[in-house]
Amino acid sequence: MRTLTSWLPISPDSDFSLHNLPYGVFHTGDGKARAGIAIGEHIVDLATAAEAGLFGKRRFFKKIFEQNTLNEFIALGKPVTNRVRQKVLTWLTQVAAPENAARLLVERRKATMLLPVRVGNYTDFYSSIEHATNVGKMFRPDNPLLPNWRWIPVGYHGRASSVVLSDTPIRRPWGQILLKDQETPVFSPSRQLDFELEMAFVIGKDSPLGTPIAVDKADEYIFGLVLFNDWSARDIQRWEYVPLGPFLGKNFGSSISPWIVPLEALKPFRVKGPKQQPAPLSYLQHGSKGGHNFDIALEVGIRGEGAGTETIVARSNSKYLYWSMAQQLAHHTVNGCNVCVGDLMASGTISGPQSGTYGSMLELSWGGKEPIRLNDGTTRTFLLDGDTVTMRGWAAKGGLRVGFGEVSGAVLKALD
Amino acid sequence: MRTLTSWLPISPDSDFSLHNLPYGVFHTGDGKARAGIAIGEHIVDLATAAEAGLFGKRRFFKKIFEQNTLNEFIALGKPVTNRVRQKVLTWLTQVAAPENAARLLVERRKATMLLPVRVGNYTDFYSSIEHATNVGKMFRPDNPLLPNWRWIPVGYHGRASSVVLSDTPIRRPWGQILLKDQETPVFSPSRQLDFELEMAFVIGKDSPLGTPIAVDKADEYIFGLVLFNDWSARDIQRWEYVPLGPFLGKNFGSSISPWIVPLEALKPFRVKGPKQQPAPLSYLQHGSKGGHNFDIALEVGIRGEGAGTETIVARSNSKYLYWSMAQQLAHHTVNGCNVCVGDLMASGTISGPQSGTYGSMLELSWGGKEPIRLNDGTTRTFLLDGDTVTMRGWAAKGGLRVGFGEVSGAVLKALD
Repeated sequence: MRTLTSWLPISPDSDFSLHNLPYGVFHTGDGKARAGIAIGEHIVDLATAAEAGLFGKRRFFKKIFEQNTLNEFIALGKPVTNRVRQKVLTWLTQVAAPENAARLLVERRKATMLLPVRVGNYTDFYSSIEHATNVGKMFRPDNPLLPNWRWIPVGYHGRASSVVLSDTPIRRPWGQILLKDQETPVFSPSRQLDFELEMAFVIGKDSPLGTPIAVDKADEYIFGLVLFNDWSARDIQRWEYVPLGPFLGKNFGSSISPWIVPLEALKPFRVKGPKQQPAPLSYLQHGSKGGHNFDIALEVGIRGEGAGTETIVARSNSKYLYWSMAQQLAHHTVNGCNVCVGDLMASGTISGPQSGTYGSMLELSWGGKEPIRLNDGTTRTFLLDGDTVTMRGWAAKGGLRVGFGEVSGAVLKALD
Repeated sequence: MRTLTSWLPISPDSDFSLHNLPYGVFHTGDGKARAGIAIGEHIVDLATAAEAGLFGKRRFFKKIFEQNTLNEFIALGKPVTNRVRQKVLTWLTQVAAPENAARLLVERRKATMLLPVRVGNYTDFYSSIEHATNVGKMFRPDNPLLPNWRWIPVGYHGRASSVVLSDTPIRRPWGQILLKDQETPVFSPSRQLDFELEMAFVIGKDSPLGTPIAVDKADEYIFGLVLFNDWSARDIQRWEYVPLGPFLGKNFGSSISPWIVPLEALKPFRVKGPKQQPAPLSYLQHGSKGGHNFDIALEVGIRGEGAGTETIVARSNSKYLYWSMAQQLAHHTVNGCNVCVGDLMASGTISGPQSGTYGSMLELSWGGKEPIRLNDGTTRTFLLDGDTVTMRGWAAKGGLRVGFGEVSGAVLKALD
């Protein structure tokens, strides 16, 4: 691995290293949305960089980067988006600070981030065997891992309209709940509000309706990855989910991190996934060698209202996922379903094998039976009003670090 | 009811009467999309009408009506959209043909229709008790109508990207299927391709995340209705749907009719829905008097490849629906889920009480056990390659007729 250095001071433990260069959309108080690339404590303002001629075709790129989402940029295709990233890298790794450095850089702390893509469609998978088994034990004690699970990267359609950016507060939802040993439901704020630790990928290329994407072509369609918190109301979900799946237990909000880490930045962190037994059907078999999972460390912290410190309640890793993103995408489209630039595909909760690695309160408190203790002495089975949940993710190896920043959100009390 | 007459000859049995005036988007070979209102065998070209000053603010409305979807127009709100409809009605009901008649009218047979809205989110409900009971008997013989069904307007999120316009051919999907008495699935083209006779409503107004829509405010958010064919692959669906619901068994395509019938046009056809027992929870109770269902006759025809004539295989009616659109929308948003202009919410298969009223082949052939006979002497359990399925819907009463036209689609053979 080549060591990269910049005239710009970048902390070695920054998520946003020269190897990362993730994309986002921001404004600086004037409400004018612009695309940017995060670097250390700064953002390279891509609209201003375009104006300065960094990418050629000044007007064209300026217009592209003055959108309030990245969809048009992403739709230009990887040859173009990777060239832009390369130009920014070249600019950052000159021997001395260029003359236009001050003009092109914005301090991250002064920027307000916006949802980076217009999400046309959002799909949520269920690809962690540990999570599926844990939840299965609680929802269906006799039948934890269903017969289809090792054959199908099980997934369902989520709600695109309620995907929100990190730091958007989440209102505790009302809904129908069947209380224990009752036969009729009550209408109540959820008593089992939960997070789900997930990662999601952003689709980078349209596919036509009727044409599957082969598993070994999937990377061409994956623009990049974000952290994803699939907020869940377990009690609402439990009563509603048979037979058509989760609905109001999920669609009150899903949060994503603001910076999309390009798939290319994660290349050094590719690892093999778990052995799949039985062998998947042929359309799900990776033909190419090399790792199809990613070694990305993940953690979840909870900070109670008024509590000074956060407690890390789970540490997991995306490498545990049984089904790869490529398999998810091949499965999703094998029937001809089309995908569009900006679509989000989330992994499902990423739990690891031990209890401290579980990616939801449902698993951490084992269905509410085993409260977990926070640093401030309070305990939790599910989330309380005022709790802030923060997820972080980063890949690190031999001096390289590529991080995702964080996705965070506070729980607001239910409407009266 | 006032009798309306026009200088334009309109057949009394036309779906597109003066009482209807549905909205669509079309072009006439030049690829220039324009909004229009269907009337008899014609379309009022709204962009040209705007240019002619029919609605005031010429430039503004011309720009609105030259979009390739109705989203921007719908987002103007019902006071505006209803005024436009009223202006068109006034223009059509002048005593004599106006001077600009030829300029503003396009023959429908010369127009190519386009998808009328950009569908941000698509939700499919399951609101026919007859359908839910029939399917339940086949998928879960011991437990046909699940305990939550009479409490919740059960629904799930569908795939927005694969909603297509009538006349788009539908490719038979490949997928995983668990054959009878087998333990491992095969990968095969679906052998149980089906239609579902549904209606869908188009959302006409954004709601903010976190704020429910009360059942008695729902009409403000319903712009209009279309016919909806929720193509389904039953064998794929059966193997995949537990526990997260239908996915690849549905998302290879869903077809809608091109003309959106405004909710206001359906006012004379409001009827009471079936008695709901037990009484719904309070957030689902209609406070206002009057009918919340609609008396809309529905039919499904199948024409085999090369067959001269179509066979009507089902006659149903939207009045059978147990849960009203207002209840569906109140439920969908009671947890704070937001809705957006252009979202589609489909009813679920609309089956009636007798066998000839069932809205899917699954029910008509009772899971494939009782083939139905077509006019050409062939039989069907599920759909064959080359079959064209056409659904029609109309409301009629005392000389009034408000119809939906049709949604049609032919089955293409699976990819090799």
